[in-house]
Amino acid sequence: MEVTNIKAYGTEAAEAPLNQLSINRRKATPHDVEIDILYCGVCHSDLHTARNEWHGTIYPCVPGHEIVGKIKSVGHHVTKFKVGDLVGVGCIVDSCRECDYCKEGLEQYCEPGMIGTYNSPDKYLNTPTYGGYSESVVVDENYVLRIPENLDLAATSPLLCAGITTYSPLRHWNVGPGKKVGIVGIGGLGHMGIKLAKAMGAHVVAFTTSESKFEEAKRLGADEVVLSKDAEQMAAYRGKLHFILDAVSAEHDVNAYLNLLRVDGSLALVGAPEQPLPIAAFSVIIGRKSFAGSAIGGIAETQEMLDFCGKHNITADIEMINIKQINEAYERLLKGDVKYRFVIDMASLKG
Amino acid sequence: MEVTNIKAYGTEAAEAPLNQLSINRRKATPHDVEIDILYCGVCHSDLHTARNEWHGTIYPCVPGHEIVGKIKSVGHHVTKFKVGDLVGVGCIVDSCRECDYCKEGLEQYCEPGMIGTYNSPDKYLNTPTYGGYSESVVVDENYVLRIPENLDLAATSPLLCAGITTYSPLRHWNVGPGKKVGIVGIGGLGHMGIKLAKAMGAHVVAFTTSESKFEEAKRLGADEVVLSKDAEQMAAYRGKLHFILDAVSAEHDVNAYLNLLRVDGSLALVGAPEQPLPIAAFSVIIGRKSFAGSAIGGIAETQEMLDFCGKHNITADIEMINIKQINEAYERLLKGDVKYRFVIDMASLKG
Repeated sequence: MEVTNIKAYGTEAAEAPLNQLSINRRKATPHDVEIDILYCGVCHSDLHTARNEWHGTIYPCVPGHEIVGKIKSVGHHVTKFKVGDLVGVGCIVDSCRECDYCKEGLEQYCEPGMIGTYNSPDKYLNTPTYGGYSESVVVDENYVLRIPENLDLAATSPLLCAGITTYSPLRHWNVGPGKKVGIVGIGGLGHMGIKLAKAMGAHVVAFTTSESKFEEAKRLGADEVVLSKDAEQMAAYRGKLHFILDAVSAEHDVNAYLNLLRVDGSLALVGAPEQPLPIAAFSVIIGRKSFAGSAIGGIAETQEMLDFCGKHNITADIEMINIKQINEAYERLLKGDVKYRFVIDMASLKG
Repeated sequence: MEVTNIKAYGTEAAEAPLNQLSINRRKATPHDVEIDILYCGVCHSDLHTARNEWHGTIYPCVPGHEIVGKIKSVGHHVTKFKVGDLVGVGCIVDSCRECDYCKEGLEQYCEPGMIGTYNSPDKYLNTPTYGGYSESVVVDENYVLRIPENLDLAATSPLLCAGITTYSPLRHWNVGPGKKVGIVGIGGLGHMGIKLAKAMGAHVVAFTTSESKFEEAKRLGADEVVLSKDAEQMAAYRGKLHFILDAVSAEHDVNAYLNLLRVDGSLALVGAPEQPLPIAAFSVIIGRKSFAGSAIGGIAETQEMLDFCGKHNITADIEMINIKQINEAYERLLKGDVKYRFVIDMASLKG
């Protein structure tokens, strides 16, 4: 297969810092679009994968699945896009397209397994897939998203993962007017959760371990903010919430939050704490409650989310970085020192 | 308030065996029925409460919430029942009747708290409520159930707790034709789960730790039986089940079962293991799965369950005991040595 050699940023080993690499991209097939990457958001999964923390990383590894850019060429069967279109690529670049889940638009749960934007077996080349920390990417048009024109392009890139990861469970569990929704953790995911739940019309209660985040949570759209380590404040919400989006990746007591749900309420985890979370039987039995989880979203729902964000003028709060700052950004990410998402200006790779 | 003194069986302390006591019942108020108790099932909750294992037991404690009997008198406003009717009383004898949940028929989740058949504050007398290990009980007609005439009366009593505890989640999670349902644990609850899920038209897969229960599980109605400690057998069901009813009260690895669910599947816990269950984030995130719980069922749903059992000729598999054997029965219960529910012949208390 014909390939193009391009510049990328990645790592050769779990312990090695990221640095410049050269990788191959296939030439666009008839159904592909070739995208000149303008911005790429930095997701905590990038770090987990680069450092092999979830195991199974194939090196060299080029992370990045919050990609926005401009189409520079299209295959001759492409019907949805044309050269010059502003587009996005999220976590999924392909899937089997034939299983029950793909047919339902749940490509993220594809039965044989979705093809991730990075660290999946590439369908065409004998390499892993390489992500958005690179000059360009070639993707089947069915896995490419249209970016609303009114949004700031850099601040839109985190919507491709952080946005859909929070939007999808909020929709799935019917968040909207008349619903009281808790958002736990105000970071890359949680800050999007607050904005999106508010725009959906819900009454939003943000939970944080730090009083210093109260003003921030309100600025992001929270109607109320609760200090989660204050037992009295927590008790006031007992049995009051219809749904809780739990965006905490560190260890935390989920039972304390399950207690705040109304009967038939669900708590959906979108963060991924390393250690299993201990759930008391009575936390779910009394009130028929659910401790659930949710992973990103399908392609159609990702487009729906982008359109929703366009309509409500929602983007992520970002800090722009140069590609050469990525290793430092990872260290800051580990300390939670970012408001609320790093985005790489990919011009810095090309220069 | 006028009372009647009757014979009961109960305990004065956590460490004391059960023995004969005398307790007071109120005289039937205009809305009450007075029931001559014929049989009472023995639930594991009886043992937990008698021994104060869930804390909060008020002594003397008279357990028993799987009651069937015959009405011997009715208050003059009673419209639903008449003297001589065969009736049942389950876990709930009253509730606030005004909260959202009571209005929805979810009295078990009553916001100020349902009045349990035993060990709740009695609404009329300055004592705890006393359960069915007794000669008779007086209950508001709205919390009394009608027993189908075609069923064996003794074997019907466990339906009032074990039956509704399994029926309610099977209905709530839409178990029926075209659904593959796992039932984990083949004991008092699980054996009812198998019978009910099968009668609802589902394809039933029973999970057991013991090969010796294979034949039993099939006799009860399981289409397939899986040895849960055999990793290979478990792997064959990965991603195959729509719903799992988990009726295990001992510690066990719930993640192994969550892996068997299809996308959007739920596992509902109805057993109550003492220690919290560790759930891995990825067990619920991948496939948008839920670890849920369920407690008994409301009054209307309990009647629906009894009618369903009448129609499908379903009762519990029981071992009848004399009231004087109750302490020995508790010891056997702890060893899982019962197929599958003890039922007390209450004539033995009266004699």
